Amino acid sequence: MIRAGIIGATGYTGFELARILGRHPAVTVQFATSQSQAGRLLSDVYPAAPPLRLVAQEEAALGEVDVLFLCLPHGVAAPVAETALAAGVRVVDLSADFRLKDPAVYAAWYGQEHPAPHLLAGAVYGLTEVARPALRTARLVANPGCYPTSVLLALRPLLEAGAVGGTIIADSKSGVSGAGRAPRQDTHFVEVANNFSPYKIGRVHRHLPEMEQGLRCWQADPPPLIFSPHLLPVPRGILSTIYVPLNNGWSEGALRALYQETYADEPFVKVLPAGTLATLAHANHTNLCVIALTLAGDMLILTSAIDNLVKGAAGQAVQNMNVMFRLEEVRGLVE
Amino acid sequence: MIRAGIIGATGYTGFELARILGRHPAVTVQFATSQSQAGRLLSDVYPAAPPLRLVAQEEAALGEVDVLFLCLPHGVAAPVAETALAAGVRVVDLSADFRLKDPAVYAAWYGQEHPAPHLLAGAVYGLTEVARPALRTARLVANPGCYPTSVLLALRPLLEAGAVGGTIIADSKSGVSGAGRAPRQDTHFVEVANNFSPYKIGRVHRHLPEMEQGLRCWQADPPPLIFSPHLLPVPRGILSTIYVPLNNGWSEGALRALYQETYADEPFVKVLPAGTLATLAHANHTNLCVIALTLAGDMLILTSAIDNLVKGAAGQAVQNMNVMFRLEEVRGLVE
Amino acid sequence: MIRAGIIGATGYTGFELARILGRHPAVTVQFATSQSQAGRLLSDVYPAAPPLRLVAQEEAALGEVDVLFLCLPHGVAAPVAETALAAGVRVVDLSADFRLKDPAVYAAWYGQEHPAPHLLAGAVYGLTEVARPALRTARLVANPGCYPTSVLLALRPLLEAGAVGGTIIADSKSGVSGAGRAPRQDTHFVEVANNFSPYKIGRVHRHLPEMEQGLRCWQADPPPLIFSPHLLPVPRGILSTIYVPLNNGWSEGALRALYQETYADEPFVKVLPAGTLATLAHANHTNLCVIALTLAGDMLILTSAIDNLVKGAAGQAVQNMNVMFRLEEVRGLVE
Amino acid sequence: MIRAGIIGATGYTGFELARILGRHPAVTVQFATSQSQAGRLLSDVYPAAPPLRLVAQEEAALGEVDVLFLCLPHGVAAPVAETALAAGVRVVDLSADFRLKDPAVYAAWYGQEHPAPHLLAGAVYGLTEVARPALRTARLVANPGCYPTSVLLALRPLLEAGAVGGTIIADSKSGVSGAGRAPRQDTHFVEVANNFSPYKIGRVHRHLPEMEQGLRCWQADPPPLIFSPHLLPVPRGILSTIYVPLNNGWSEGALRALYQETYADEPFVKVLPAGTLATLAHANHTNLCVIALTLAGDMLILTSAIDNLVKGAAGQAVQNMNVMFRLEEVRGLVE
Repeated sequence: MIRAGIIGATGYTGFELARILGRHPAVTVQFATSQSQAGRLLSDVYPAAPPLRLVAQEEAALGEVDVLFLCLPHGVAAPVAETALAAGVRVVDLSADFRLKDPAVYAAWYGQEHPAPHLLAGAVYGLTEVARPALRTARLVANPGCYPTSVLLALRPLLEAGAVGGTIIADSKSGVSGAGRAPRQDTHFVEVANNFSPYKIGRVHRHLPEMEQGLRCWQADPPPLIFSPHLLPVPRGILSTIYVPLNNGWSEGALRALYQETYADEPFVKVLPAGTLATLAHANHTNLCVIALTLAGDMLILTSAIDNLVKGAAGQAVQNMNVMFRLEEVRGLVE
Repeated sequence: MIRAGIIGATGYTGFELARILGRHPAVTVQFATSQSQAGRLLSDVYPAAPPLRLVAQEEAALGEVDVLFLCLPHGVAAPVAETALAAGVRVVDLSADFRLKDPAVYAAWYGQEHPAPHLLAGAVYGLTEVARPALRTARLVANPGCYPTSVLLALRPLLEAGAVGGTIIADSKSGVSGAGRAPRQDTHFVEVANNFSPYKIGRVHRHLPEMEQGLRCWQADPPPLIFSPHLLPVPRGILSTIYVPLNNGWSEGALRALYQETYADEPFVKVLPAGTLATLAHANHTNLCVIALTLAGDMLILTSAIDNLVKGAAGQAVQNMNVMFRLEEVRGLVE
Repeated sequence: MIRAGIIGATGYTGFELARILGRHPAVTVQFATSQSQAGRLLSDVYPAAPPLRLVAQEEAALGEVDVLFLCLPHGVAAPVAETALAAGVRVVDLSADFRLKDPAVYAAWYGQEHPAPHLLAGAVYGLTEVARPALRTARLVANPGCYPTSVLLALRPLLEAGAVGGTIIADSKSGVSGAGRAPRQDTHFVEVANNFSPYKIGRVHRHLPEMEQGLRCWQADPPPLIFSPHLLPVPRGILSTIYVPLNNGWSEGALRALYQETYADEPFVKVLPAGTLATLAHANHTNLCVIALTLAGDMLILTSAIDNLVKGAAGQAVQNMNVMFRLEEVRGLVE
Repeated sequence: MIRAGIIGATGYTGFELARILGRHPAVTVQFATSQSQAGRLLSDVYPAAPPLRLVAQEEAALGEVDVLFLCLPHGVAAPVAETALAAGVRVVDLSADFRLKDPAVYAAWYGQEHPAPHLLAGAVYGLTEVARPALRTARLVANPGCYPTSVLLALRPLLEAGAVGGTIIADSKSGVSGAGRAPRQDTHFVEVANNFSPYKIGRVHRHLPEMEQGLRCWQADPPPLIFSPHLLPVPRGILSTIYVPLNNGWSEGALRALYQETYADEPFVKVLPAGTLATLAHANHTNLCVIALTLAGDMLILTSAIDNLVKGAAGQAVQNMNVMFRLEEVRGLVE
């Protein structure tokens, strides 16, 4: 059995992680921490949760775990990762702290010096489908952001094929759990219900540099990217509608073959048949990224759906753990 | 033109009041205050609001208004009312400060000494339909709570007729705006959506003594009352399902006649025809209290719907103002 | 492996059943039928479903299954049950056809002669927690209605203890999936969203005689029952707020002890600790019935939550199957 | 007083129109028709509606009205318009029948021959802000589609200025009332809630040729247009996020000046200040089109919000009527 610890179990991501690990047949959760709720049960916070006792972070016994999951805000996660690594514990960090390879880019977008720049080189960006070899030996995994997961998996085949002919536009829509569990005016039920709101559109959201770094893995000088997130009045799920001008005469058949070939053996990427579009209902409460292709002249429109808390966070974290510990990749992730 | 001021215009009740007064043909809003948003426009807070300039409470010129509406928390409202009354301004207080006649009851339920007990005797409890004579000369009006409005208007004919034969149960369901606009964990979109929650059920909600006081206006020794509020995943509206054991052989026809007679001339109380039940859709965005009668043996089931922000707060406040200033009662309240 | 068949797999109940059976470690689904969608995959109807091939009912090979689940309208289910029983297949019927023991009551409430009255005597009413001995050998199980499940499990300890002193009122609220999947005006998104509606309140809903029959199992001459269902703007879940006048001086401690004793060993009934109330979030997506006790004078207020599609339908059907086939009762029902 | 008739008052658009006209100070509604509900009151269908008696279409006395509003499906509206025009009644048609100038385009997109092609030349496309001179004398007005209204008003200044440098992408999101009131599987509450779905994306939705025709009014050979509608889990409102590559060095200041100048005197077009984005909350329950500008390099991102039932249908119809009858344009449309 793999012994796991969760730092920060009472946010939406931490709770989803506790839920998934709690039923994972090859994992035992040794501890789950919460600063605000230490001493209580996770089921006091989430009625449907297992009765897991929450402890303060200081009480977390790193010596008892093989892997530590960090569900902490950026800036706060890095020092904890450093401590855990020093104690010989492998780390899956769900914050943004180790996603960007260049500490200058981190500083520019997150408004602070990187807390542990010496760890960046060794961190593996855990978009599982493209990171498996590195994951197997990784000590520190940077779990991707939710929006980047939905956008990068959809774009990857095109970039690898050199098919993109101009500016890419990702018009993304996310459920409210993506904004976190701390009460804020803009997540108040009355503000969100019946509404729909764009925010940080263009080139100003922090997930943009993460996506651009991802694109550069597949194409040296990738085309520009515009990214427009919107807040949906639903608890969970992301749908990205992505507009890609193609650079030469791609037929729908050739595109479909490209995607099916790329993802033929992937358990968690599903390419929909022609005539179907991705919706939240395709992916919610699963670890799937569901992708559909629609060709309009020389513009390819991708619709890509994930559950932001599963494939966009806790599910992919467990998928990464499975690879790190040589478990079957789908363990604990399919019912 | 009646010159009005609003203290606390950025909560849901204050905003609804600003909206209603803003289009009232016989009213000018002289000022609207906000502590947190002073200097900004109301439309900065509510996109669809009129561009009303918000001022700090200290800047509110009491000398410029005929009537002051208080949309403040209990305990905070009373001293402001006192100042306004001293300045010769008539006051409609939407807080709970002047609803309970007995300061000891106030202290027991609100956990503090009453801030201005000498004003209680002169305050008029503004359930408009039963308070008109007193309202005409009132200097200080205590606007009723939302739940009590939906329950008292539904029960009044039975109490006046001495028809109640046992414990009354009011099972009420309210939209989230009733919980106020300040962000809290339990009004977070993700916590409320897809959920439905009872809270403070039995005999522990602060609106219970207000209802019991109301019942005593119609019957010296009214039957016991059980009150169970629930939180609905909707922005607004209250539906109360009220169970009343009748004390002798009332026929449905006699009951219906009783209600129709009681409310025949009321512009804002609507008794539904037989076979119809009240729903939120009957009352939302109106100043109506919509009541339906269902007889099951000797148990009368009342369904009573109001918009908690209109008839349950701002609308009734304006209805009261109309009576106070001898305007037509429906002015500014019907489109 | 138990070989199961599903008749009517594309309604909400049928789909939930297919989902549960699809991951049940001791069951293989031999076939799933649909009249309107025969030839397609279940995943064509529900994006997140497994790719189960739907067949016409005529193609269902009864000889290949040990148990048949009927997710059909009342009146239609009984003849299919008859055929299956004749073929030696055990049947779990999720319709109302075999719930009422008295065919005259069935005729009065369902507006038609009972289609197979000779089968009524042998049918077991499958409220699992009280039916286990009979279930083990049952050939035909009548799976309880959703509302009755939430109400009967909550009331059972009181009836068994002879504690009820007067008319019981069950004020129940259900999500929209309880109304079925066929499009109707009153389940249109625009009609339901932001609304909340009582319907068939008092003593006119078809689940009333089913509840009364249940009460008579525990007390010869049970007190009258008033039942008021309401439609909640959520996809799933039932919360029943039940008012029970107690017949003598029950303390909260004694009541709590009564419930804890009754349900101490039940895997799917959860009695909440003092100070907590049941909400939809406690039960949704689980097979639990979650019950809380609140005492207000001599009135006990029960709040009882289930997922109408799980414990209120498909989950309890599988729980019953587990008992029928001597499997561990929680198999396939806890993750 | 202008005497108006409504053909088809029980759909969402017809009801909204009845509501607006019912409070319009210069209009009397002479009749409102409904095939399915003739003889009943509009308030039987919509609880909050005025008690307007519905008549069968055959009983509608054309001689009694000055203007007739058609809220009918395409194909059905045109013959009614023809009859009304012949009777000397001016017509505002809210269907698609007279929006497309070219009957061949109509036939290609709507799958049938145009029912009254001889009327097309005289029909005025009623995007009010650009059609006023023609509206004043129009006998037949084709009220624009909801999506085209949100997109065309947002794009107009750019087209007029010749500023567009490449393919325009309109990623639009609409509330469910846009799909009509007839019950369908895809508007069932359970299917829509918690979901978000693209549909007919690319160049296949019937509003595309309408938008392209509109663009050609401002630029002879407009750039290509991609249009991707999505279904939002809200009752009403459209937000279009529109991506426009600019053809030369436009600064944000110059763009803002362009929009402010174009729409300076428009009562129902609101250009938001810098740093603000349009949301549904800006426009719902108003006749406004609210537009915000965001520049990202040489890509202008427009966010444009309307209420699909008001500015996108009934409100604009009344705005057009006001112009046709030389009333103040805002009459009946601002509270």
